[in-house]
Amino acid sequence: MSDMLTTGATIGILGGGQLGRMLSVAASRLGFKTCIFEPAGDCPASHVANYHFQASYDDHDALRKFAESVDVVTYEFENIPTEALDVIEAIKPIRPNRKTLAVSQDRLVEKAFLNELGLKTAPFAAVDDATDLAEAIAEIGTPAILKTRRFGYDGKGQARIMSPDDAEAALADMAGAPAILEGFVDFSHEVSVIAARGLTGEVCCFDPGENVHKNGILDTTTVPANLTGMQTADAVLLAGKILNKLDYVGVMGVELFVTRQGLIVNEIAPRVHNSGHWTQNGCTVDQFEQHIRAVAGWPLGDGKRHSNVVMENLIGDDVDGIPEIAKSGDAIHLYGKADAKPGRKMGHVNRVTGPAN
Amino acid sequence: MSDMLTTGATIGILGGGQLGRMLSVAASRLGFKTCIFEPAGDCPASHVANYHFQASYDDHDALRKFAESVDVVTYEFENIPTEALDVIEAIKPIRPNRKTLAVSQDRLVEKAFLNELGLKTAPFAAVDDATDLAEAIAEIGTPAILKTRRFGYDGKGQARIMSPDDAEAALADMAGAPAILEGFVDFSHEVSVIAARGLTGEVCCFDPGENVHKNGILDTTTVPANLTGMQTADAVLLAGKILNKLDYVGVMGVELFVTRQGLIVNEIAPRVHNSGHWTQNGCTVDQFEQHIRAVAGWPLGDGKRHSNVVMENLIGDDVDGIPEIAKSGDAIHLYGKADAKPGRKMGHVNRVTGPAN
Repeated sequence: MSDMLTTGATIGILGGGQLGRMLSVAASRLGFKTCIFEPAGDCPASHVANYHFQASYDDHDALRKFAESVDVVTYEFENIPTEALDVIEAIKPIRPNRKTLAVSQDRLVEKAFLNELGLKTAPFAAVDDATDLAEAIAEIGTPAILKTRRFGYDGKGQARIMSPDDAEAALADMAGAPAILEGFVDFSHEVSVIAARGLTGEVCCFDPGENVHKNGILDTTTVPANLTGMQTADAVLLAGKILNKLDYVGVMGVELFVTRQGLIVNEIAPRVHNSGHWTQNGCTVDQFEQHIRAVAGWPLGDGKRHSNVVMENLIGDDVDGIPEIAKSGDAIHLYGKADAKPGRKMGHVNRVTGPAN
Repeated sequence: MSDMLTTGATIGILGGGQLGRMLSVAASRLGFKTCIFEPAGDCPASHVANYHFQASYDDHDALRKFAESVDVVTYEFENIPTEALDVIEAIKPIRPNRKTLAVSQDRLVEKAFLNELGLKTAPFAAVDDATDLAEAIAEIGTPAILKTRRFGYDGKGQARIMSPDDAEAALADMAGAPAILEGFVDFSHEVSVIAARGLTGEVCCFDPGENVHKNGILDTTTVPANLTGMQTADAVLLAGKILNKLDYVGVMGVELFVTRQGLIVNEIAPRVHNSGHWTQNGCTVDQFEQHIRAVAGWPLGDGKRHSNVVMENLIGDDVDGIPEIAKSGDAIHLYGKADAKPGRKMGHVNRVTGPAN
């Protein structure tokens, strides 16, 4: 147990958004302090973390001081500049590891990694220019979707290609960034598995949740998901395969399409995930604490679900509904963001729909 | 709903211990910032609160600045100096109110208040000197217990009187402070009701928990408690009577002795209460969020229990058991205290024993 951090240890978190905020809260339950690194002031995590290094990711001096002041470093987003990671890793361990980031920061590398593991993905091809794109469309067909290889989230950096005529405009949307063309997958619904792996290699998955998106942003996650027992087993096994192959430590979100040909991996996120927020009111140990347990070298919680839950995101002015929602008995989680801009995740609501079944 | 605080509002909390810590965390879930006022540095609540006024309660300038920087003031302990409250109340509302503090800060005033409401208490008498004590013993009999009227908690400031021979030593223990002699109550067990009252007068009670003490400190709380339906109804009704009479806003802990003659009120605590910690893993809205909802003018959560729970305090070096407990799947709540002194509350564990029944 020598690697198990104890009360008073400090967990460093790269990123100060709502995921960092809820990680900080979970860390406090286990007696840890948290220190966030985030360029923005008055960010959601800064309200609950012990310390806030407000500095840029290219400020290596600040990164060094940050790393020296903590016991272990984790992150709430995957697009951290490589040089920043180099600076930190020379001083303190980063969990999940660099190998994972290298895979998940690039859609092309990620899909190739998954295929090598024997897991199915959408058909894909690298696209660097118009020639590549024409060849890729010829191979994959339309409809398809062109995405930047890096730095995409919540539908940003994506363009649909319904017919070859859309190719030029889609490529222009990439603004010269290396891209990937992905074929459409004929799926009935999307589920995700929130999986965790501890420092000593044990793997634990929460029950899969069923996701519905609106305008490219997650809208609801429902547990239990509509899956057969065999599909559920398959989802858990493939998540375990991914985590083990990466020597992963922490929580990962694995998004899956349910198709007649089986489960197809949409994408992986090496962090706590919006589609795992239901665990806050459905499990004794939620995804945030599970992640903290893993990076702190603690035994994992057992992932058991005590309640059925529907998680609903509050996007933009959805948050104006809070006075009514507050009367409902549903669990409210707000992120402390002052400005309800359109498309901005302001909070979420977990509606407990009954005991787990 | 004009009194309902919204995201970005700041809740001031007097006291920076574990209750303030868990109140801060609950406030963050609803989008609030917290500002604690606490003379000690590196206190449990400072790890998760936005701001920490580290100043003495007789520093009126600091109290004024504190009050000006927040939207409403609440507290995690009842023994706040009256003058400090005067300074604050001139600037911002204090919830629960001053009337409640006047009652609960003095055991004698509290028992008289409860009796006036028609509620049963242990027999009692005021004791200022040896003559009072001799008369009180003659009236109440032995065994009895001599307590300071003010500033007692966790069995401190108390002396047992098994026979009149113990009177002199017991009085010496009071060190000249005004005291109260309380007769022993022949009870089968102790339960407590965690009750809440909102700004608009609605009352909501969590299910009563059954408490077991060790060395004068709460050891375990178990829900459901061993009570008949009639006793449960009685417990809820008497708690409501107390809260309504005080125009109370917030969560109150009401400790009750179960006797053949019915329920007898042991004491009331105008704050979140150790015997309500089980709600963190037994209810969707726990006692901490319920208190924040009340003081922020929000509708209360419905208090519904989804799981049965045994809460166990980690006192002093109990906390050394954490590596083992972490394997169990039980919910761990640590307070971030560095020093495991004997008798010190270091954390607690909530063991979910099954779905609510």
